[in-house]
Amino acid sequence: MNDKKQITAITPTRNDDYPEWYQQVIKAAGMAESSPVRGCMVINPWGYGIWELIQKHLDKRIKDTGHENAYFPLLIPLSFLEKEAQHVEGFAKECAVVTHHRLEAGGPDGKLIPAGELEEPLIIRPTSETIIGHMYAKWVQSYRDLPILINQWANVMRWEMRTRMFLRTSEFLWQEGHTAHATEAEAVEETMKMLEVYREFAENILAIPVITGEKTPEERFPGAVNTFTIEAMMQDRKALQAGTSHFLGQNFARSSGIKFLNEKSEECYAWTTSWGVSTRLIGGIIMTHADDDGLILPPRIAPKQVVIVPIMHKEEEKNQVLAYCENLRSAIGETLYEKEPIRVYIDQRDVRGGEKNWQLIKKGVPLRIEVGPRDMAKDQVCLMQRHLGHKEKEFLSPKELVEKLPSLLTNMHKVLFERAQKFRDENIRTITDKSEFTAFFTAKNPEKPEIHGGFALSPFVPGNSETEAFLK
Amino acid sequence: MNDKKQITAITPTRNDDYPEWYQQVIKAAGMAESSPVRGCMVINPWGYGIWELIQKHLDKRIKDTGHENAYFPLLIPLSFLEKEAQHVEGFAKECAVVTHHRLEAGGPDGKLIPAGELEEPLIIRPTSETIIGHMYAKWVQSYRDLPILINQWANVMRWEMRTRMFLRTSEFLWQEGHTAHATEAEAVEETMKMLEVYREFAENILAIPVITGEKTPEERFPGAVNTFTIEAMMQDRKALQAGTSHFLGQNFARSSGIKFLNEKSEECYAWTTSWGVSTRLIGGIIMTHADDDGLILPPRIAPKQVVIVPIMHKEEEKNQVLAYCENLRSAIGETLYEKEPIRVYIDQRDVRGGEKNWQLIKKGVPLRIEVGPRDMAKDQVCLMQRHLGHKEKEFLSPKELVEKLPSLLTNMHKVLFERAQKFRDENIRTITDKSEFTAFFTAKNPEKPEIHGGFALSPFVPGNSETEAFLK
Repeated sequence: MNDKKQITAITPTRNDDYPEWYQQVIKAAGMAESSPVRGCMVINPWGYGIWELIQKHLDKRIKDTGHENAYFPLLIPLSFLEKEAQHVEGFAKECAVVTHHRLEAGGPDGKLIPAGELEEPLIIRPTSETIIGHMYAKWVQSYRDLPILINQWANVMRWEMRTRMFLRTSEFLWQEGHTAHATEAEAVEETMKMLEVYREFAENILAIPVITGEKTPEERFPGAVNTFTIEAMMQDRKALQAGTSHFLGQNFARSSGIKFLNEKSEECYAWTTSWGVSTRLIGGIIMTHADDDGLILPPRIAPKQVVIVPIMHKEEEKNQVLAYCENLRSAIGETLYEKEPIRVYIDQRDVRGGEKNWQLIKKGVPLRIEVGPRDMAKDQVCLMQRHLGHKEKEFLSPKELVEKLPSLLTNMHKVLFERAQKFRDENIRTITDKSEFTAFFTAKNPEKPEIHGGFALSPFVPGNSETEAFLK
Repeated sequence: MNDKKQITAITPTRNDDYPEWYQQVIKAAGMAESSPVRGCMVINPWGYGIWELIQKHLDKRIKDTGHENAYFPLLIPLSFLEKEAQHVEGFAKECAVVTHHRLEAGGPDGKLIPAGELEEPLIIRPTSETIIGHMYAKWVQSYRDLPILINQWANVMRWEMRTRMFLRTSEFLWQEGHTAHATEAEAVEETMKMLEVYREFAENILAIPVITGEKTPEERFPGAVNTFTIEAMMQDRKALQAGTSHFLGQNFARSSGIKFLNEKSEECYAWTTSWGVSTRLIGGIIMTHADDDGLILPPRIAPKQVVIVPIMHKEEEKNQVLAYCENLRSAIGETLYEKEPIRVYIDQRDVRGGEKNWQLIKKGVPLRIEVGPRDMAKDQVCLMQRHLGHKEKEFLSPKELVEKLPSLLTNMHKVLFERAQKFRDENIRTITDKSEFTAFFTAKNPEKPEIHGGFALSPFVPGNSETEAFLK
């Protein structure tokens, strides 16, 4: 064990204890931590910076496909949840209920107690179909008012008993698109369009290869006609549902009363969709790319793509080294990667060089550049690429480096994607036989039930309840 | 009255009924509307688009001054609110209280009722000093851990009985900065720095002239040592508090336990600040710039800066006109205003030209361009600038127009700012005499108590309770 501690920055390793490794990567990178509120996390600046970049890239795609952002209330009247029968089953069970609107000093020792009881309790949104549907019913009168193409970036809450940072927390951040259409075909097209937006986004921005598919009836969003999903294989060979797009048919239109007059002046119910991704994506990034030294960030969502580390042993070297670093930073900051200036920082914190280097490794910074007096004398800097492991170094002149950066970042994205794709493809098996199937999904090592066999490609028919019962 | 209705797009006018005019401007522009949840509004795409631009411009300034974004839980344990005595007084009174975490079908007719009572009630954050302070106490051990410079974009909730769209709603969106410092001087500097960020932002982005100043002890943020504010004069000559920056001294550090060892290894409490602006700014934009025809948007926060309206009387003209418009759109979209492509759209909706024009006026779109076959024949387009009133038109060639656009937008910002500044300055009176003061603040017309006298410049000493008692 002591040996291992010396050679990996994260303890335990993936192989030793995958779930615990996951928590330790988050902690070592300073991405998130638990809060005094049960099941709610604090997202630290490094984790939130990743979320901001996810928002930026995805928001552009959502807008480019014709959607606008809006904002709907956090609280939903209890009676709204009761309107759609399946929806109640799915979401009413574990949610945060607001019952009072005031606190009064009426408790023992003058402690505050809830007062001002509400006539109707309010629920913190677990998802917003019902309240948004209520508004759409007011907005839609005629076929001319359709389609409505709206997205919301918001926090939502589902009371979770067993939580895991980013993957399953009581409060989480997400976007939820909600659209209403005049025809079934148009709503189905929208559902598939957004699924494709998610696929392209996951692969081109997060470097996560995904498989698109349809969920079984039992795994559907409560109230949906079809639920489609992008699924990625994590390093424990399990699937992570990374985004969903739901065709809701007329279910929510009926329960919310979204009706319109068509061109023949007939009253019809609208066809609706909803689709979302959440901060869970950050969990997916970690479990796809991180290694036993910590996080590895695909460059497009790295808050800092390049960090320059000045090495100064003596006080008198300081000004010279910093001036050199500042020139380099400026040149890099003027260089474009994917049409935007490269995000570059000088890490001047008063921390030992070795420790600083390991901190940056654990944070998953794509490129680190060390600049010390000896290198400067040779007009060279030391480049380290996170995904190549901590021993790989390359020396090159600042000019060469700056020229090379965009292609280095492009290449890194490609390598990360292909590495994940290869891992996934190696762990997909085609299975047609029942006993083989059972054997495949039986844990090999009962002490490590978290290490999973992989994906099975099977002649599975969605909606065939016999198959589904067997799968259970 | 009928005459007036014909000549202004908004009824009533500012002069007839200022508060009602305000609501009607919002409605006519499609910015927000009330929701089925008491006191909570729905922010429509046009209003939310303005908020997104506010976020973008302000977020850049917050980051440029060294802050990072993070995210803290929506819910705050009740006991946290009790920690800071004054804070309780200010915020515990009217807030949303979560008491249960489940719904069960245990009511009459199987209706859902709250179940799973929480041991300790949770409050939806009215502001986050207490929960963020709790985390900072864990993060800060040594002077090396300071300063902490963090901002959060979030929704907050204060149960309001009398609400007004954007200005006072139960739920609203805001940013809240929370910083912790090793010295008093540094925390005071931070407080004043962010006040200046708000001033510069209000003036250069929102075109709202503001006066910076200090709040009286009675108007301070509950728990603050000093509260500073930017205040703007609305068109009813009343002040709108548009942003606040609080120096919290060591009050919250004491109640949350944010302690550190200084360079001499002495244990000290940190000095903290907090500062915020909210969706209320959108109310300030309306009340500063809008007129009796509706909203007027300063160009930097207009979701659409230029809208092209194709005029097509006959079907056979359609393709030609649209092709001309598309060329123009493309040329404008490649033109930079403030280093960013001009936000230009073609309004192809199937709405009569006159009605469409009035809709765009009421939305406050800075520049409208009409393109019809007759103009095209002369290679000219018709330009209308929102702030000049609906009768002013100018004909110019597409080439001229595109070249002129950046300066037109720059000029429009300037004119809007100066118009508001002139109005404000004309309504500030210097008053040193007590009876004059009383007369000034007595409503002239008891039927229109909303129309106010303006600002009074008086020898008022903050903290002098005699003066304060008189002012009340």
